[in-house]
Amino acid sequence: MIKNTIKIILASASSRRMTLLQGIGLKFTSRESLVEETMQPLSTCVHGQPGAHAVSLARMKADDVGRREKGRALIIAADTIVVMGNRIIGKPSGRKDAEKILGLLSGKTHRVVTGVCILKIPEHVRVTFSVTTEVTMLRMPDRDIRWYIKTGEPMDKAGAYGIQGIGGVFIKKIHGSYTNVVGLPLPELIEALKRLKAIEIG
Amino acid sequence: MIKNTIKIILASASSRRMTLLQGIGLKFTSRESLVEETMQPLSTCVHGQPGAHAVSLARMKADDVGRREKGRALIIAADTIVVMGNRIIGKPSGRKDAEKILGLLSGKTHRVVTGVCILKIPEHVRVTFSVTTEVTMLRMPDRDIRWYIKTGEPMDKAGAYGIQGIGGVFIKKIHGSYTNVVGLPLPELIEALKRLKAIEIG
Repeated sequence: MIKNTIKIILASASSRRMTLLQGIGLKFTSRESLVEETMQPLSTCVHGQPGAHAVSLARMKADDVGRREKGRALIIAADTIVVMGNRIIGKPSGRKDAEKILGLLSGKTHRVVTGVCILKIPEHVRVTFSVTTEVTMLRMPDRDIRWYIKTGEPMDKAGAYGIQGIGGVFIKKIHGSYTNVVGLPLPELIEALKRLKAIEIG
Repeated sequence: MIKNTIKIILASASSRRMTLLQGIGLKFTSRESLVEETMQPLSTCVHGQPGAHAVSLARMKADDVGRREKGRALIIAADTIVVMGNRIIGKPSGRKDAEKILGLLSGKTHRVVTGVCILKIPEHVRVTFSVTTEVTMLRMPDRDIRWYIKTGEPMDKAGAYGIQGIGGVFIKKIHGSYTNVVGLPLPELIEALKRLKAIEIG
């Protein structure tokens, strides 16, 4: 009952993002950008705005898929980063790194920032925005951290946790958008797609 | 890697609650309480604490399943209510009611309260608690409300929406526990199960 007026391509192979879009009944195809893997893991300090940083990563993903795509389409790309103080925390490089990251997040509040880039081709019109959510973790005893890492869930996720899986056990509260923490801020995305007249609802 | 030391029964046939528990790898069986359906829809005013109200409903569910169960077991029951001002909003009685409820929640902040009762049999030891999350909805135009009702998702849910499905599109932000809005506050539940020595992690 969401009707596309244009072919929509999700520039991501993330099952979490696909599940979110499938959950609302949006029709789309997915195409992984080659940027995705080469940018990870991030462990640098961010100077300036994390939102702008996430958006620029999303833009690179959208442009990459846009270059390889022919015809008329709308490409949605997103990049989710975890920010603690002024440090960007990417995907863990291994178990030891995951342990360090989770120890850092334990008992504290961090920010999850998703940058989104919508690219319309062949016109190359871009709409970009970012959404930030505050996430407060429970204090995680070392035993729980080791247990969580053994489940394998932390390994491919920014901040070494997944909110919608086992990680949910460790999240005390969030302040802001939930879907943003999963990896794609749905209300803002749908609003942008409506404005671009890429979808019709009803 | 969560080990049960006792048989765990979820006193609910809610697929959302089952999915949450399955997601963290907890082993349990589910048994619907007969209380569940007869208590809904709620549309009364609540005098006193919504938390106490939700807990008393959860307690009735746990006791109902506890009565029909033999042997040694731990029964988990929960009841989720939506509170707007001092009004409890239950499951919609039909499409018209869903339209009214969503119109009421549109553009405003409401509270989602889940009451939990853990009942250990045959000792009949009970642990109860409630968790409250604030949810802020986007302003929903009538057209979007009608579209959302047509998807069928609102019909079996307190407050006529599901945060983890299509309803996620309309949720601007939440303040507090996410799993609580889905129907079972995981961190608090796991903590209680640990204290009761019903589970071991590691």
